[in-house]
Order: sequence, then structure tokens, then C-alpha cells
Amino acid sequence: MQRIMLILLAITLPLSVIGKFMHWSEVALFAIACAAIIPLAGVMGRATESIAIHSGPKIGGLMNATFGNAVELIIAFFALREGLIGVVQASLTGSIIGNLLLVAGLSMLVGGIKHPQQKFNRTIAGTNAAMMLLGVVIALVIPAIFGLSNPGGDDLKISIGVSIVVMILYLLGLFFSLFTHRSLFNYTEEMHEEEAEWSVGKAVGILALATAAVAFESELLVHTIEAVSLQFGWSEVFIGVIIVAIIGNAAEHSSAILMAWRNKMDLALEIAVGSSLQIAMFVTPVLVFLSLILGNPMTLVFSWPELAAMVLSVFLINFLAQDGESNWLEGAMALGAYVIIGIGFYYL
Amino acid sequence: MQRIMLILLAITLPLSVIGKFMHWSEVALFAIACAAIIPLAGVMGRATESIAIHSGPKIGGLMNATFGNAVELIIAFFALREGLIGVVQASLTGSIIGNLLLVAGLSMLVGGIKHPQQKFNRTIAGTNAAMMLLGVVIALVIPAIFGLSNPGGDDLKISIGVSIVVMILYLLGLFFSLFTHRSLFNYTEEMHEEEAEWSVGKAVGILALATAAVAFESELLVHTIEAVSLQFGWSEVFIGVIIVAIIGNAAEHSSAILMAWRNKMDLALEIAVGSSLQIAMFVTPVLVFLSLILGNPMTLVFSWPELAAMVLSVFLINFLAQDGESNWLEGAMALGAYVIIGIGFYYL
Amino acid sequence: MQRIMLILLAITLPLSVIGKFMHWSEVALFAIACAAIIPLAGVMGRATESIAIHSGPKIGGLMNATFGNAVELIIAFFALREGLIGVVQASLTGSIIGNLLLVAGLSMLVGGIKHPQQKFNRTIAGTNAAMMLLGVVIALVIPAIFGLSNPGGDDLKISIGVSIVVMILYLLGLFFSLFTHRSLFNYTEEMHEEEAEWSVGKAVGILALATAAVAFESELLVHTIEAVSLQFGWSEVFIGVIIVAIIGNAAEHSSAILMAWRNKMDLALEIAVGSSLQIAMFVTPVLVFLSLILGNPMTLVFSWPELAAMVLSVFLINFLAQDGESNWLEGAMALGAYVIIGIGFYYL
Repeated sequence: MQRIMLILLAITLPLSVIGKFMHWSEVALFAIACAAIIPLAGVMGRATESIAIHSGPKIGGLMNATFGNAVELIIAFFALREGLIGVVQASLTGSIIGNLLLVAGLSMLVGGIKHPQQKFNRTIAGTNAAMMLLGVVIALVIPAIFGLSNPGGDDLKISIGVSIVVMILYLLGLFFSLFTHRSLFNYTEEMHEEEAEWSVGKAVGILALATAAVAFESELLVHTIEAVSLQFGWSEVFIGVIIVAIIGNAAEHSSAILMAWRNKMDLALEIAVGSSLQIAMFVTPVLVFLSLILGNPMTLVFSWPELAAMVLSVFLINFLAQDGESNWLEGAMALGAYVIIGIGFYYL
Repeated sequence: MQRIMLILLAITLPLSVIGKFMHWSEVALFAIACAAIIPLAGVMGRATESIAIHSGPKIGGLMNATFGNAVELIIAFFALREGLIGVVQASLTGSIIGNLLLVAGLSMLVGGIKHPQQKFNRTIAGTNAAMMLLGVVIALVIPAIFGLSNPGGDDLKISIGVSIVVMILYLLGLFFSLFTHRSLFNYTEEMHEEEAEWSVGKAVGILALATAAVAFESELLVHTIEAVSLQFGWSEVFIGVIIVAIIGNAAEHSSAILMAWRNKMDLALEIAVGSSLQIAMFVTPVLVFLSLILGNPMTLVFSWPELAAMVLSVFLINFLAQDGESNWLEGAMALGAYVIIGIGFYYL
Repeated sequence: MQRIMLILLAITLPLSVIGKFMHWSEVALFAIACAAIIPLAGVMGRATESIAIHSGPKIGGLMNATFGNAVELIIAFFALREGLIGVVQASLTGSIIGNLLLVAGLSMLVGGIKHPQQKFNRTIAGTNAAMMLLGVVIALVIPAIFGLSNPGGDDLKISIGVSIVVMILYLLGLFFSLFTHRSLFNYTEEMHEEEAEWSVGKAVGILALATAAVAFESELLVHTIEAVSLQFGWSEVFIGVIIVAIIGNAAEHSSAILMAWRNKMDLALEIAVGSSLQIAMFVTPVLVFLSLILGNPMTLVFSWPELAAMVLSVFLINFLAQDGESNWLEGAMALGAYVIIGIGFYYL
């Protein structure tokens, strides 16, 4: 697997540089950038992981909680700089529903094919469900509904206030899992118990190089979305919600499914739900603040279809997880919901 | 009970034929058709049951899962042929909320009066709750919200796509309960453990006759709804949601309540929730496809009141069932919700 | 604590009378009225409690269930008489979300700081969650959605019908907890096991005096809201939802937090959720009926922001309580949700 990824990287990175300077068709450049970002995100994840192992569980946990979605953050940064607020919101939406429905769904399905019934910690599932309701549903529905009732109002002020509250709660959640209730999350240490792949120095170097490469590819990706949209008749929202999100989360997909296959459902859900929470409660607020600095203010007022997709995903994952058990049918349901939402965005 | 039903049948069937050809008042014909469909639905249910017992649990389960709501399907077919899309959607809505609130509510209330606390399998309740969220909430909210954001858009294409996904999931659900996780549903075999009432040949004959009679009465019913609407000042939606739905589901009501009284709450909920799922995930998609053939396309875009009624019913039943226990107060709540929704439709 | 309250009362009561007749600034009078209502509500609560203890658990339970929110009822009565329907609805909204998020949130947070994990009865939590879904979500969403789909329709008739259903269910809920399923609620008897503070005669006298004083202060409060709104640039809705609601529920806050600190989480949640249910299913219907008598009809059609705030609060509290356990992070989430909603109303 890792060998295939390296080969992919060795082909796509040079191709994208050559293609950019030779002015290849934008659709081709988009495809190459997508194909480059997938292995780069994997390399960044492995480098972060190595540093995290060397730093011990607490600093390591903090690192994963802040850099775990660096790729999404970088892509969004370039889209934000171009003023493509709609693309940023679409890719945030896509990351959240992709993690909740696609990653968790595939995990439950694949794990459920091998194991008839898989169990996971209900206390954590309950706390995570409430966190999702807060960080996704409440944090986004309130600005949308209050904005609707008060057109021309203080959408931006509400969004900044809500972002601050949400980020504080995210930090409190880290404090909860790393300090006051760490024993509940013991299982996550399994994730880090293997030896580090690289030394700290090497990992930092790889991380820096990969980040630079991701930045280059992300800029390319953002600049070519419009052309792809025109060429295929796909809306930019569809590209953001489905395609960009799948690329940015490919690494999470493979790890979570592997854990589910090994019947470590707690870990699989931690990856899927943890990544969604990080997007909603850390990446999104950071982007709101960044957007102010960049002079293209982004509010938390998402479109109704995006909002509906996220709210329904949160409820579905809670309904699936509330009994602390999963099976292959529940995984199929999450995937079915993802396809239904995808159909909706396709025809939007 | 069965004797009363037979007498009712012996009176209403000839009356409806005579009345139709003598051009009696449409309100009278509507009432007669209603009174005829109730026992016919019961006979069809018993005939299906007999064939199911002879066919063994798997084929029998499949039969119940496809023919269990044949009456609703036939009524909807005639309404669809007349282009009465609103009536079809209203009767689907009514069947879903009727099963979830009225059938399940009466079961919890009646069972709860005899038994202080009734328990049922939480794994199944959780899987069913997620299925309802998918088949009712997600499958109907997505077309409605996406249609709203994109007027004149591809409502029909979205509806067809969603219908296909939903039907596949329904089939996967059958595969789950009849094959991979059959042991979870062992209790349903009690339902079929009695001896078959009729031989296969006799049952098939009775089923054919009853189906023909239901078809006749359904056509009568559909043709007289407008007159009843004008006469009593009830909207066609109210008639569809409340009256037609109660008639079509009378058989489910009596069986479920009987099971609850005998403290077989798993069976009672299986009837109520199973029937809702069948309407939402099998009958509704079939009607979408049929509507294309009949040339009166029906989308999955229901009215907001219908959508709200269904979504709230699904959440209420999940809140009531999530702890795997019920009592008479929970039954009273479901009935109260039904009355509240009924009041809403009455004044619409 | 009680001494401080008495001193506050001894200062604010005369001041408000003097201030009213000397025509002090309305902002000052508003502040004095607020400062007087807090200890008065406490005194009324203690007097009701004394009478309840003397009356035995059943009559006592009934008394608490009807007079427990007398202060809110009195404030709302004066606002209703002035035709300030918006202020009444805002203060009802504020009481419901204040109890669900602020009181329950502070209880979970404070209790959770002392006790890593607090448990409570899941059966009661489930029944209460369903009751909230019915009494808050269904009872308010149906009139709003059906009213929206049918402008100029029978909003008032729907509201009266729904109010009757909701009140019947509230009475059935009392019957459930005081008679048929009393043993489930055994823990509430702890609340009443202490000796009564006052004799019945003394308690009735104190209750009468305090009620008269609350009535005086409430009228003052209602008459000065507009001036405060103009002076500080706060909307009347913000004042109703946040300020009036906190004042009216101060007594609940302190008792619930004390119970949580003593690890009696069942009692703490009973106070918070019970008070919300009482507002939604008893005080609100009573106000609908009262509004007809006063000639300023109030419907159950709340504004969308109010509706969203209440619906989200009910879902959050259910997500937090569905596993029968709480911790400090869950308390922080409820408080965070309260702040987010407060930010929304502030900028409305």
C-alpha cells in the first residue's frame, strides 16, 4: 500500500509542476493535483504520528487534534484567499459528512462483514454525539436561523462569537480526554503504541516538505475547480462537498477501516467522529478568524442543503451509535445516506 | 371478531356494487367502501399469513415484507392513475404516522395498562430507529430542501435516485433479518408458529378474490374523496392522512395491540415499525416508479406539514424506544402526538 | 444565603415602592424590580415547600407541579394584559432553555467537577426526554409549520386544541409519577423528607404576602422593559429570553446545583427538566387560555429563532442524558449551547 502511494507521489508531483508551467488543460491539472494530495496527506499523517509518538500521549494527542486535518486547512486557506467562500463551506460540509457517513459507514460495513456485532464504549459515543450536536448542529443552525429572521443583520458578529465558544469547547474536550477522563480513552494509546516510523528530526523534515507540496497542489486544485465545474457541468458545491472532501480524508478512510476490520470499533469511530469534530470545532473557527485577516470574511451561515446534510448526518450517526453496537446493515445505512446526499448535491 | 368482520363484508360488498350502479350519493359510497376495505384488508392479511406459514420463515418473511401493505398500494395505484398525487402522498404520510403513533401508541398504552413496564430488544429498536431516520427523514428531507433551494430543478431525478437507494436498503434490511442476523429476530417466528388457517390453494384463491374486491372498493373510494371533501369541508389531505390511513391499517392495529396485551412488545413494535418501514422504503419507491409508467410523475417532495408530521413521529418513537422499555404514559404520549398532528391537518 | 436574600428583600421592596411614586428612572426601577423578584421567588418556593410537606407527598407533588412556576405565571399575566405577546413568548422560551441548558448545565458542570461520573435513572430520563419532545417540540413545531403553510388560517384554533392535548398529557404525567409509577420516583421524597420550615398557617400567610409583592414587582418589570430596551439597545426578546428568565428561575438554579454537588443527579435533573416541562405543558397552555379571557389572544406560533432555540435545547439535553451518565464536559456543552443561543438573541 505504502509502496503504491510512493509511486503515485513520484509520478504526480513532477507532473503537476511540469503541467502547471506548460499550461496543460485545467481539468488535467485538477486530476493530477487530486492524485498528488492523497499520498501527500498520508505522508503528513505518518510524520505527525511519528512526532506524536516521540512526544508522549499528551503532547501527541494535542498534535493530532490540531494538525490532523492540516490538508483540509491548507486547501481551504487558498480557496479563502481567492474569495471562494462557497467552495470552502462546501469542502467543510463534505469533510464532516464524509467522515460521519463514508468513513464511519465503511468501517461499520467492513467490520460488520467480518464480525456479526461490534461493540464500542457508549459513554464516549454519547459524549461525542452531544459534541457533534453542539459543534455542528447548534453552532450552524443558530447563525442560519437567526440570520434568516434578521436579514442584513450581524451575521458576522454572531459567527465570530459562536466560533469562539465552539473553539473553547473543543479545547475543553481535549482537556477532558487527555487529562481529567484519560482512562476512558485508554484504547487510543494502542494507536500510538507501535514504534515511531521516523526519528523526530526526520519526521519534522518530511512534514515540512510534504506541507510545502500540499500547499502547491492545493493552490493548483483551487485554481482549476471552476474549469472542472464548467467542463463536466458539476456545480462547485458538488466538487467541494464530494470530490475535494474525499481526497482530503482518504488517509482517515484507510486507517478507520483497518481498525474496524480488526474489531477495534472504538478506534475506528474515534478516527471518523474525532476528525469530524476537529473540522467542525477547530478548522471551521480557525477559518472564520483567518477569513477576517485575509479580508474575505466567511460567516457560519451555510446553505440550507449543506446544513440539512450535516444535521441529518449527525442524527443518523447518533441513532446508529446510541446503543453502543454496530453491524453491517448500520454501515450500509450510513453509506446509503451518503449516496442520497450525494445525489442531492449532484443535481443542485 | 372474525365473525363480525365476515358479516360486515357480507353487507358492504353487495351494497357497494348496488350503490355504484344505482348512483347513490358519493358520501354514502365513500362510507360503504371504507367499511368494506377494513375486513378485506384483514382477510388479505390472513391469506398472506397462511401462504407465508406454508412457505417457511424465509419466503414467508419476504412475502410479508412485500405484500403486507398491498391494500395501501392498491388504493394509491388508483389515486395515482387519476393524477391525485396529493392524495397519494397524504395517504403515505398517514400510514407512516398512523403506524408509528397510533398503532405503536395504542400498543404501549394497552400493554402498559396491564404490565407496568414492558421491555423489548434494544438492538432491534436501534436498528429500526436508524432505518426510519434514513427511509423517512433523510429520504424525504433531502428532496424537499434541495428542491426548495433549486426551484424548477431536477426534483424528479433526485426522487428516482433516492427511491432506488432506499429500496436497495430495504432489501438489505430483509437480508439482514432473514439471513445474516436471523437469530436476533427469533421472536417473529412465534407469529408464524401457529398452524396455517388455510391450505395454500385456498389461501391463494381467497387472496385473489379479496384483492379484486379491494381494487373495486379502492377505485370507489378514490372517486368519492372529492365529494366527501366538499360535503364536510375537510381537505383532501386530512381525508388522506387520517381516514384513508386508518382504514388501510386497521388490521395492523388489532394484531399489534393483541401482542402488546400479551406482553410480546417486540412483536407489537415489529408490526408497527415494520409496517411504517415497508410503506416508506418499499411502497413509496414502487409508487414513484409506477407513477412514471402511468404518466403522472410523483416526486418525493411532500408538503412541509406532511414532512414535519413524519419527521416528528420518527423522533418521538426513537425517544420512546431508545431505552428498550415502554409504559402506558409513553403510549399516551404517542397518541397525544397523533391527536396534535390530526388537529393540524384538520385546520389546514 | 437566606440572610443575604432577606436583606436584599428588605432593601429592594421599599425602594421599589418609593421609586415608583417618586417617578425614578425606568431603568433604575427595572433593576430594583429584578433584584426584588429573586428573593421573593425563593420565599414563595420555601412556603410552597412547607405546605407541600404538611400535605403529604401526593398533594405536595401536585402543589409543586402547579405552583412551582407561579412567578413566571404572574410576570406573564401582566405582560399579557398589556398585550406584550412577544415578551410573554420570549420569557417562556427563556424559561425553557434556561432550565434545560443553564440549570441542567451548571448542575452537570458543578457536580462533575466534584464527581468524575454521575449516574441517574435512564427510564426517567427517557420518559422525560419524550415528554419534552412532545410538550416543546411537537406542540410548538406543528402550529408553526402548519401556520406557515396556511397563512391567515386557524392558528388560534390549532393552538387551543394543542394546548388542551398538552395539558391532559401533563396531568397524565403527574398521575404516572404520583400514582401508577410512584416507586420510580422514590428519590424525590428525599426532597421533602426534611421538616417543614413553617407551619401551614404561617406558610400560607407568607405565600399570600410574597405573591402580592411579586405581583407588584412584576407589573413594574413589565412596564419598564421598553425603556430598558431603548436605553441599552437590547431587543425586548433578548430581555425576555435571557434576563427575565434568569430572574424567574434563580431559585431552581441554586437548588439544582446544590443537589448535583451532593451527587443527587436524579434530583438535580428533576428540578431542571421538571421545571421546563411545567413551563411548556402547564404554564404555556394556561397562558393561552388566559389570553383569550384577557382579549389579547396568544397563539403557540413562536418566532423561528425561539423555536430553534427550544428544539435544539431539547435535543441536546436528550443526547446528554440518553446514556444515564453525566460529566463536567457535558455540563460545559450545555452552558456553551446557552451562550451560543444568547449571542444569537443579543444580535437579533
